[in-house]
Amino acid sequence: MSVTTKATIASFGGKLLKLSHAATSTKCEMSFNLYLPPQAFQNPSQKIPVLLYLSGLTCTADNCSEKGFFQHGASKKGIAVLYPDTSPRGLNIPGEDEAWDFGTGAGFYIDATKAPYNNGYNMYTYITEELPKTVFQAFPQLDSSRVSITGHSMGGHGALTLFLRNPGKYKSVSAFAPISNPVNCAWGQKAFGGYFGEEQVEKWKEHDATELVRKWKGPLDVLIDVGTGDNFYKQGQLLPENFEKAAKEAGVEGVRVRYQPDYDHSYYTMATFSDDHVEHAAKYLFA
Amino acid sequence: MSVTTKATIASFGGKLLKLSHAATSTKCEMSFNLYLPPQAFQNPSQKIPVLLYLSGLTCTADNCSEKGFFQHGASKKGIAVLYPDTSPRGLNIPGEDEAWDFGTGAGFYIDATKAPYNNGYNMYTYITEELPKTVFQAFPQLDSSRVSITGHSMGGHGALTLFLRNPGKYKSVSAFAPISNPVNCAWGQKAFGGYFGEEQVEKWKEHDATELVRKWKGPLDVLIDVGTGDNFYKQGQLLPENFEKAAKEAGVEGVRVRYQPDYDHSYYTMATFSDDHVEHAAKYLFA
Repeated sequence: MSVTTKATIASFGGKLLKLSHAATSTKCEMSFNLYLPPQAFQNPSQKIPVLLYLSGLTCTADNCSEKGFFQHGASKKGIAVLYPDTSPRGLNIPGEDEAWDFGTGAGFYIDATKAPYNNGYNMYTYITEELPKTVFQAFPQLDSSRVSITGHSMGGHGALTLFLRNPGKYKSVSAFAPISNPVNCAWGQKAFGGYFGEEQVEKWKEHDATELVRKWKGPLDVLIDVGTGDNFYKQGQLLPENFEKAAKEAGVEGVRVRYQPDYDHSYYTMATFSDDHVEHAAKYLFA
Repeated sequence: MSVTTKATIASFGGKLLKLSHAATSTKCEMSFNLYLPPQAFQNPSQKIPVLLYLSGLTCTADNCSEKGFFQHGASKKGIAVLYPDTSPRGLNIPGEDEAWDFGTGAGFYIDATKAPYNNGYNMYTYITEELPKTVFQAFPQLDSSRVSITGHSMGGHGALTLFLRNPGKYKSVSAFAPISNPVNCAWGQKAFGGYFGEEQVEKWKEHDATELVRKWKGPLDVLIDVGTGDNFYKQGQLLPENFEKAAKEAGVEGVRVRYQPDYDHSYYTMATFSDDHVEHAAKYLFA
């Protein structure tokens, strides 16, 4: 459970910590970043809520820390930002490094059930259980009862599915360009086929936001930004319209998908709108 | 003089353009980025002022475009940001790719006089003459009479020296962690020795901000941010204290060096304070 500090970087009045720990669920040393806002250093008795940001395919904890500018909004609101990695690293599973959209950097926030990936590709358990347990033990100034979740692309899929599968666990959810209906897109089919097996259709649906929202009870205040210039959106990898439609059919109110004119799939889009997503989380974290 | 558009990226309500052109002064195709704020697309009769940002060693136009967060402030103020490259590329001068602090990526914003670098390493002429001429011809909505300058590290040296050598050319100047006294630091001595020759002491001084500020007439409202956790500052590569001392001795008022506690030499520092530097430029661009 011990955490190694690899770097401490001043950022927007707070500190960005580059950390790692030996993870049991993923059977390897996992790197992650944690942004502590200035408020975390001001009043020791004030507990700091956490925004969990899940990254997309190929990313590490560093990409969004450098380019997403969540620290800008989080520093003003007094929110810590937790940036995990996107998969186990270095498990030496044959083939895990062959594709950019499967294996290393592409854990898809599920627990794999198919060999050989069932031996360590457990990002669902890692993100929902082991990482928070580790972080809240190492940083007692953080408030484990106030956590919101967001993410980009594969991480948007992660944010939506982790939220929908665990009612009450997260105070709020938002997403950038989420893979919203993985069972119906090439990325999701490749990932779920490889991690669960081709025939495990019910298992696939358990990790599909569009399937999960059909069963949601009550309102769902989710903020989603998708750029109309996003090539992956145009290629049908994201399918936010399926998510919207499913929510509507199920009578779930509060799904706000903003189609941002010309914006693409890059961090330039996230940088532009991250303040809005921090604001969305803050509404619930400080409710 | 024609400009090639390689990409158009939506960012903070405006557009970041990735561009290139065949440059005469540097004898090669030069890439640069230009951020057009939302105001550039709103009122065709409204001329947009420009903030010229000069990058540091090893960087291209992309680093600060992605990580510096200048678009955040510039989009609010209605300022275009011009991000040039840091040297000629691909001239095939023997040795130009051997070091990260000399040759490619390290043009130092001077015109080299020593062979073989005098054949193309003319970043001073490129930045002060050819690039603006090209940009203002290609983008008539930009206001060539309102340009401010800033930069980081080697680019901070560029910003200070270009401003001090050309009174009236730029409306304002600021810098992050500038190489403030290159004749007295290892980076500067290597660069000036290689580009001008070891014996050309007077030439060296013509491109040294600390030497130039001694001759400045009148006030000088310059904003400089240096992190106290900056390893290059601690190693004596930046020497902002020499610049401050020289200005004081010469009776030049208005030099504001902010020593930012714990901040390092990275883009995390720039992202934190870029809004302040945009604000500083805006005060003069909209005076």
